[in-house]
Amino acid sequence: MTVLLNAETQVNSEALNAIAHMPTKSLGVLLDSNFTRKLCDKDFMRIAVLLAKKGYEEGGCPIGAVIVDNETNQIVGKGHNTLVQESHPYNHGETSAIRDAGRIDFSKTTLYTSLSPCDVCATLLYMRGFQRVVVGDITNASGNEPLLESKGVQVDILEDEQGIVLYQQFRAEKPEQDLEDWQGLAAVNAGHK
Amino acid sequence: MTVLLNAETQVNSEALNAIAHMPTKSLGVLLDSNFTRKLCDKDFMRIAVLLAKKGYEEGGCPIGAVIVDNETNQIVGKGHNTLVQESHPYNHGETSAIRDAGRIDFSKTTLYTSLSPCDVCATLLYMRGFQRVVVGDITNASGNEPLLESKGVQVDILEDEQGIVLYQQFRAEKPEQDLEDWQGLAAVNAGHK
Repeated sequence: MTVLLNAETQVNSEALNAIAHMPTKSLGVLLDSNFTRKLCDKDFMRIAVLLAKKGYEEGGCPIGAVIVDNETNQIVGKGHNTLVQESHPYNHGETSAIRDAGRIDFSKTTLYTSLSPCDVCATLLYMRGFQRVVVGDITNASGNEPLLESKGVQVDILEDEQGIVLYQQFRAEKPEQDLEDWQGLAAVNAGHK
Repeated sequence: MTVLLNAETQVNSEALNAIAHMPTKSLGVLLDSNFTRKLCDKDFMRIAVLLAKKGYEEGGCPIGAVIVDNETNQIVGKGHNTLVQESHPYNHGETSAIRDAGRIDFSKTTLYTSLSPCDVCATLLYMRGFQRVVVGDITNASGNEPLLESKGVQVDILEDEQGIVLYQQFRAEKPEQDLEDWQGLAAVNAGHK
Protein backbone atom coordinates (compact mmCIF):
# COMPACT_ATOMS: atom_id res chain seq x y z
CA MET A 1 0.00 0.00 0.00
CA THR A 2 1.31 3.42 -0.92
CA VAL A 3 1.23 6.32 1.49
CA LEU A 4 0.46 10.03 1.12
CA LEU A 5 4.04 11.16 1.68
CA ASN A 6 6.63 9.30 -0.42
CA ALA A 7 9.57 9.79 -2.79
CA GLU A 8 7.49 11.93 -5.14
CA THR A 9 5.85 14.26 -2.62
CA GLN A 10 7.28 17.57 -1.46
CA VAL A 11 8.23 18.55 2.06
CA ASN A 12 5.85 21.42 2.77
CA SER A 13 3.84 22.92 5.63
CA GLU A 14 0.81 20.71 5.08
CA ALA A 15 2.94 17.55 5.19
CA LEU A 16 4.81 18.63 8.33
CA ASN A 17 1.57 19.59 10.06
CA ALA A 18 0.01 16.22 9.31
CA ILE A 19 3.12 14.54 10.72
CA ALA A 20 2.93 16.69 13.86
CA HIS A 21 -0.68 15.67 14.54
CA MET A 22 -0.42 11.96 13.64
CA PRO A 23 0.20 9.64 16.61
CA THR A 24 3.82 8.46 16.47
CA LYS A 25 2.92 4.78 16.24
CA SER A 26 0.70 5.52 13.21
CA LEU A 27 3.25 7.56 11.23
CA GLY A 28 3.85 4.55 8.98
CA VAL A 29 0.44 5.01 7.35
CA LEU A 30 1.29 8.62 6.45
CA LEU A 31 4.88 8.55 5.22
CA ASP A 32 7.48 6.05 4.05
CA SER A 33 11.25 5.89 4.42
CA ASN A 34 11.84 7.70 1.10
CA PHE A 35 10.01 10.73 2.47
CA THR A 36 11.60 10.39 5.90
CA ARG A 37 15.07 10.61 4.37
CA LYS A 38 14.28 14.03 2.87
CA LEU A 39 13.61 15.61 6.28
CA CYS A 40 16.34 17.87 7.70
CA ASP A 41 16.96 19.59 11.06
CA LYS A 42 14.87 22.57 10.03
CA ASP A 43 11.90 20.33 9.17
CA PHE A 44 12.04 18.49 12.50
CA MET A 45 12.19 21.81 14.32
CA ARG A 46 9.18 22.99 12.34
CA ILE A 47 7.29 19.86 13.45
CA ALA A 48 8.19 20.71 17.07
CA VAL A 49 6.82 24.23 16.52
CA LEU A 50 3.64 22.86 14.89
CA LEU A 51 3.17 20.71 18.01
CA ALA A 52 3.63 23.88 20.08
CA LYS A 53 0.94 25.52 17.95
CA LYS A 54 -1.38 22.55 18.55
CA GLY A 55 -0.85 23.03 22.30
CA TYR A 56 -1.55 26.75 22.05
CA GLU A 57 -4.81 26.09 20.20
CA GLU A 58 -5.86 23.71 23.00
CA GLY A 59 -5.38 26.52 25.55
CA GLY A 60 -2.04 25.18 26.73
CA CYS A 61 1.58 26.34 26.79
CA PRO A 62 3.01 26.34 23.25
CA ILE A 63 6.05 24.09 23.54
CA GLY A 64 6.69 20.97 21.48
CA ALA A 65 9.46 18.44 20.93
CA VAL A 66 10.43 15.70 18.51
CA ILE A 67 12.88 12.81 18.91
CA VAL A 68 14.52 11.38 15.78
CA ASP A 69 16.58 8.21 15.28
CA ASN A 70 20.03 9.31 14.07
CA GLU A 71 20.44 6.36 11.72
CA THR A 72 17.02 6.01 10.07
CA ASN A 73 15.87 9.64 10.40
CA GLN A 74 12.55 8.27 11.71
CA ILE A 75 10.53 10.06 14.36
CA VAL A 76 10.48 7.81 17.44
CA GLY A 77 8.76 10.19 19.86
CA LYS A 78 7.04 13.57 19.94
CA GLY A 79 4.72 15.58 22.08
CA HIS A 80 3.80 18.91 23.53
CA ASN A 81 3.23 20.58 26.87
CA THR A 82 -0.02 19.54 28.61
CA LEU A 83 0.03 21.53 31.87
CA VAL A 84 -3.50 22.77 31.20
CA GLN A 85 -4.90 19.99 29.01
CA GLU A 86 -4.04 17.15 31.41
CA SER A 87 -3.49 19.16 34.61
CA HIS A 88 0.02 17.76 34.33
CA PRO A 89 2.64 19.59 36.43
CA TYR A 90 5.70 18.69 34.33
CA ASN A 91 4.57 17.34 30.95
CA HIS A 92 6.77 19.74 29.00
CA GLY A 93 7.67 19.31 25.33
CA GLU A 94 10.75 17.24 26.16
CA THR A 95 9.22 15.06 28.91
CA SER A 96 6.20 14.45 26.67
CA ALA A 97 8.30 13.32 23.70
CA ILE A 98 10.52 11.11 25.90
CA ARG A 99 7.46 9.50 27.46
CA ASP A 100 6.05 8.92 23.96
CA ALA A 101 9.30 7.27 22.80
CA GLY A 102 9.32 4.90 25.77
CA ARG A 103 12.13 2.67 26.90
CA ILE A 104 14.73 3.20 24.16
CA ASP A 105 18.44 4.12 23.97
CA PHE A 106 18.31 7.92 23.62
CA SER A 107 22.04 8.17 22.89
CA LYS A 108 21.21 7.09 19.32
CA THR A 109 18.66 9.90 18.84
CA THR A 110 18.42 13.68 18.56
CA LEU A 111 15.82 15.74 20.43
CA TYR A 112 14.41 18.91 18.85
CA THR A 113 12.67 21.28 21.27
CA SER A 114 10.83 24.44 20.30
CA LEU A 115 11.99 26.21 23.50
CA SER A 116 15.19 26.10 25.55
CA PRO A 117 14.80 23.34 28.20
CA CYS A 118 13.96 24.05 31.87
CA ASP A 119 16.10 22.65 34.72
CA VAL A 120 14.05 19.45 34.99
CA CYS A 121 14.10 18.69 31.26
CA ALA A 122 17.79 19.56 30.90
CA THR A 123 18.58 17.16 33.76
CA LEU A 124 16.43 14.44 32.19
CA LEU A 125 18.15 14.94 28.82
CA TYR A 126 21.64 14.24 30.12
CA MET A 127 20.45 11.56 32.60
CA ARG A 128 18.87 9.63 29.70
CA GLY A 129 22.03 9.81 27.64
CA PHE A 130 21.08 12.19 24.81
CA GLN A 131 24.15 13.08 22.72
CA ARG A 132 22.54 15.87 20.70
CA VAL A 133 19.79 18.41 21.39
CA VAL A 134 18.58 21.09 18.95
CA VAL A 135 17.00 24.18 20.52
CA GLY A 136 14.49 26.28 18.55
CA ASP A 137 14.22 29.34 20.79
CA ILE A 138 16.82 30.93 23.05
CA THR A 139 15.16 34.34 22.70
CA ASN A 140 12.30 33.67 25.13
CA ALA A 141 14.22 31.34 27.46
CA SER A 142 17.74 30.03 27.82
CA GLY A 143 20.35 29.15 30.38
CA ASN A 144 20.70 25.37 30.43
CA GLU A 145 22.70 25.04 27.22
CA PRO A 146 26.06 25.25 29.10
CA LEU A 147 24.83 22.63 31.62
CA LEU A 148 24.02 20.22 28.79
CA GLU A 149 27.37 20.87 27.11
CA SER A 150 29.21 20.30 30.39
CA LYS A 151 27.58 16.85 30.47
CA GLY A 152 28.84 16.05 26.97
CA VAL A 153 25.64 16.83 25.05
CA GLN A 154 26.05 18.59 21.70
CA VAL A 155 23.67 21.57 21.66
CA ASP A 156 22.76 23.18 18.36
CA ILE A 157 20.74 26.40 18.20
CA LEU A 158 18.32 26.54 15.28
CA GLU A 159 15.88 29.29 16.01
CA ASP A 160 12.45 29.09 14.36
CA GLU A 161 10.94 32.53 13.91
CA GLN A 162 7.32 31.28 13.99
CA GLY A 163 7.98 29.47 17.27
CA ILE A 164 9.57 32.54 18.85
CA VAL A 165 6.65 34.79 17.87
CA LEU A 166 4.11 32.23 19.12
CA TYR A 167 5.80 31.93 22.52
CA GLN A 168 6.06 35.70 22.89
CA GLN A 169 2.35 36.00 22.15
CA PHE A 170 1.47 33.29 24.70
CA ARG A 171 3.62 34.85 27.43
CA ALA A 172 2.02 38.25 26.88
CA GLU A 173 -1.47 36.73 27.01
CA LYS A 174 -1.00 34.32 29.96
CA PRO A 175 2.01 35.32 32.10
CA GLU A 176 0.81 33.33 35.13
CA GLN A 177 0.40 30.13 33.11
CA ASP A 178 3.92 30.63 31.79
CA LEU A 179 5.27 31.08 35.34
CA GLU A 180 3.36 28.05 36.64
CA ASP A 181 4.78 25.94 33.84
CA TRP A 182 8.36 26.79 34.84
CA GLN A 183 8.11 27.01 38.62
CA GLY A 184 4.76 25.60 39.68
CA LEU A 185 1.64 27.05 41.29
CA ALA A 186 3.70 27.73 44.45
CA ALA A 187 5.56 30.48 42.56
CA VAL A 188 2.32 31.96 41.20
CA ASN A 189 0.74 32.01 44.68
CA ALA A 190 3.90 33.49 46.24
CA GLY A 191 3.64 36.36 43.75
CA HIS A 192 0.09 37.09 44.96
CA LYS A 193 1.06 37.38 48.63
CA MET B 1 -22.44 6.38 54.66
CA THR B 2 -19.72 5.12 56.98
CA VAL B 3 -16.36 3.97 55.71
CA LEU B 4 -14.09 1.07 56.63
CA LEU B 5 -11.42 3.25 58.23
CA ASN B 6 -12.74 5.78 60.77
CA ALA B 7 -12.28 7.12 64.29
CA GLU B 8 -12.73 3.64 65.79
CA THR B 9 -10.40 1.64 63.51
CA GLN B 10 -6.74 1.05 64.13
CA VAL B 11 -3.85 2.11 61.94
CA ASN B 12 -2.33 -1.24 60.95
CA SER B 13 -0.62 -2.90 57.97
CA GLU B 14 -3.88 -4.02 56.37
CA ALA B 15 -5.30 -0.49 56.48
CA LEU B 16 -2.12 1.10 55.09
CA ASN B 17 -1.92 -1.49 52.30
CA ALA B 18 -5.52 -0.84 51.26
CA ILE B 19 -4.77 2.90 51.19
CA ALA B 20 -1.66 2.29 49.05
CA HIS B 21 -3.63 0.33 46.45
CA MET B 22 -6.78 2.51 46.34
CA PRO B 23 -6.80 5.15 43.56
CA THR B 24 -6.21 8.56 45.16
CA LYS B 25 -9.50 10.02 43.94
CA SER B 26 -11.40 7.10 45.55
CA LEU B 27 -9.73 7.29 48.97
CA GLY B 28 -12.88 8.96 50.36
CA VAL B 29 -14.79 5.68 50.12
CA LEU B 30 -12.13 3.94 52.24
CA LEU B 31 -11.25 6.37 55.03
CA ASP B 32 -12.64 9.53 56.63
CA SER B 33 -10.94 12.59 58.13
CA ASN B 34 -10.98 11.08 61.65
CA PHE B 35 -8.79 8.24 60.42
CA THR B 36 -6.67 10.53 58.25
CA ARG B 37 -5.78 12.62 61.31
CA LYS B 38 -4.28 9.60 63.05
CA LEU B 39 -1.67 9.03 60.34
CA CYS B 40 1.90 10.13 61.11
CA ASP B 41 5.15 10.44 59.08
CA LYS B 42 6.00 6.80 59.68
CA ASP B 43 2.60 5.68 58.34
CA PHE B 44 2.91 7.74 55.16
CA MET B 45 6.40 6.35 54.60
CA ARG B 46 5.04 2.85 55.06
CA ILE B 47 2.41 3.58 52.38
CA ALA B 48 5.23 4.70 50.05
CA VAL B 49 7.03 1.41 50.75
CA LEU B 50 3.83 -0.60 50.18
CA LEU B 51 3.56 1.14 46.80
CA ALA B 52 7.18 0.14 46.14
CA LYS B 53 6.21 -3.45 47.02
CA LYS B 54 3.28 -3.26 44.59
CA GLY B 55 5.73 -2.15 41.87
CA TYR B 56 8.11 -4.99 42.70
CA GLU B 57 5.32 -7.55 42.46
CA GLU B 58 4.46 -6.18 39.00
CA GLY B 59 8.04 -6.84 37.86
CA GLY B 60 9.03 -3.19 38.18
CA CYS B 61 11.49 -1.13 40.22
CA PRO B 62 10.34 -0.98 43.87
CA ILE B 63 10.08 2.75 44.54
CA GLY B 64 6.96 4.56 45.74
CA ALA B 65 5.98 8.03 46.89
CA VAL B 66 3.10 9.76 48.65
CA ILE B 67 2.16 13.46 48.77
CA VAL B 68 0.24 14.74 51.80
CA ASP B 69 -1.54 18.05 52.39
CA ASN B 70 0.18 19.69 55.38
CA GLU B 71 -3.05 21.16 56.77
CA THR B 72 -5.60 18.35 56.33
CA ASN B 73 -3.17 15.38 56.45
CA GLN B 74 -4.98 14.04 53.37
CA ILE B 75 -3.16 12.12 50.65
CA VAL B 76 -3.37 14.24 47.48
CA GLY B 77 -1.11 12.15 45.25
CA LYS B 78 0.75 8.84 45.23
CA GLY B 79 2.35 6.45 42.83
CA HIS B 80 5.20 4.14 42.06
CA ASN B 81 7.87 3.59 39.45
CA THR B 82 6.56 2.19 36.13
CA LEU B 83 9.71 1.91 33.98
CA VAL B 84 8.81 -1.67 33.09
CA GLN B 85 5.03 -1.66 33.49
CA GLU B 86 4.44 1.33 31.18
CA SER B 87 7.77 1.38 29.33
CA HIS B 88 8.07 4.81 30.93
CA PRO B 89 11.62 6.25 30.97
CA TYR B 90 11.19 8.55 34.01
CA ASN B 91 8.02 7.61 35.88
CA HIS B 92 9.80 7.32 39.21
CA GLY B 93 8.04 7.30 42.58
CA GLU B 94 8.20 11.09 42.88
CA THR B 95 7.26 11.96 39.28
CA SER B 96 4.40 9.44 39.45
CA ALA B 97 2.97 10.94 42.67
CA ILE B 98 3.33 14.52 41.36
CA ARG B 99 1.59 13.58 38.13
CA ASP B 100 -1.19 11.93 40.18
CA ALA B 101 -1.63 15.07 42.31
CA GLY B 102 -1.94 17.29 39.24
CA ARG B 103 -1.88 21.06 39.11
CA ILE B 104 -1.71 21.99 42.82
CA ASP B 105 0.46 24.20 45.05
CA PHE B 106 3.10 21.73 46.27
CA SER B 107 4.54 24.21 48.78
CA LYS B 108 1.60 23.28 51.05
CA THR B 109 2.40 19.56 50.92
CA THR B 110 5.01 17.02 52.03
CA LEU B 111 6.38 14.32 49.74
CA TYR B 112 7.40 10.95 51.18
CA THR B 113 9.65 8.85 48.95
CA SER B 114 10.77 5.30 49.67
CA LEU B 115 14.19 5.96 48.05
CA SER B 116 16.48 8.99 47.90
CA PRO B 117 15.56 11.04 44.80
CA CYS B 118 17.55 10.95 41.53
CA ASP B 119 18.81 14.15 39.86
CA VAL B 120 15.65 14.59 37.77
CA CYS B 121 13.25 14.09 40.68
CA ALA B 122 15.31 16.28 43.04
CA THR B 123 15.25 19.07 40.45
CA LEU B 124 11.49 18.65 39.96
CA LEU B 125 10.93 18.77 43.74
CA TYR B 126 12.54 22.18 44.18
CA MET B 127 11.24 23.52 40.85
CA ARG B 128 7.66 22.72 41.94
CA GLY B 129 8.13 24.47 45.28
CA PHE B 130 8.11 21.58 47.77
CA GLN B 131 9.05 22.81 51.26
CA ARG B 132 9.48 19.40 52.89
CA VAL B 133 10.57 15.99 51.62
CA VAL B 134 10.87 12.83 53.74
CA VAL B 135 13.32 10.19 52.47
CA GLY B 136 12.85 6.52 53.42
CA ASP B 137 16.15 5.06 52.23
CA ILE B 138 19.60 6.66 52.09
CA THR B 139 21.31 3.28 52.44
CA ASN B 140 20.78 2.14 48.82
CA ALA B 141 20.98 5.61 47.22
CA SER B 142 21.68 9.16 48.33
CA GLY B 143 23.40 12.34 47.28
CA ASN B 144 20.72 14.86 46.41
CA GLU B 145 19.73 15.75 49.97
CA PRO B 146 22.25 18.66 50.13
CA LEU B 147 21.00 19.95 46.75
CA LEU B 148 17.41 20.03 48.05
CA GLU B 149 18.52 21.74 51.28
CA SER B 150 20.49 24.34 49.32
CA LYS B 151 17.22 25.19 47.54
CA GLY B 152 15.41 25.70 50.84
CA VAL B 153 13.69 22.31 51.04
CA GLN B 154 13.53 20.70 54.50
CA VAL B 155 14.75 17.11 54.14
CA ASP B 156 13.95 14.58 56.85
CA ILE B 157 15.44 11.09 56.81
CA LEU B 158 13.06 8.41 58.08
CA GLU B 159 14.47 5.09 56.99
CA ASP B 160 12.04 2.19 56.61
CA GLU B 161 13.79 -1.13 57.15
CA GLN B 162 11.32 -3.07 54.95
CA GLY B 163 11.87 -0.64 52.09
CA ILE B 164 15.66 -0.88 52.38
CA VAL B 165 15.62 -4.69 52.35
CA LEU B 166 13.23 -4.74 49.38
CA TYR B 167 15.40 -2.39 47.32
CA GLN B 168 18.55 -4.36 48.15
CA GLN B 169 16.84 -7.55 47.00
CA PHE B 170 15.66 -5.92 43.73
CA ARG B 171 19.12 -4.52 42.95
CA ALA B 172 20.74 -7.90 43.50
CA GLU B 173 18.15 -9.58 41.26
CA LYS B 174 17.99 -7.00 38.43
CA PRO B 175 21.10 -4.80 38.40
CA GLU B 176 20.57 -3.69 34.77
CA GLN B 177 16.98 -2.64 35.40
CA ASP B 178 18.21 -0.61 38.35
CA LEU B 179 20.89 1.07 36.20
CA GLU B 180 18.42 1.79 33.39
CA ASP B 181 16.05 3.39 35.86
CA TRP B 182 18.72 5.85 37.02
CA GLN B 183 20.65 6.54 33.82
CA GLY B 184 18.67 5.12 30.91
CA LEU B 185 19.25 2.31 28.41
CA ALA B 186 22.21 4.29 27.00
CA ALA B 187 24.15 3.56 30.20
CA VAL B 188 23.20 -0.12 30.11
CA ASN B 189 24.30 -0.46 26.46
CA ALA B 190 27.55 1.46 27.13
CA GLY B 191 28.36 -1.09 29.82
CA HIS B 192 28.00 -3.91 27.28
CA LYS B 193 30.47 -2.42 24.79
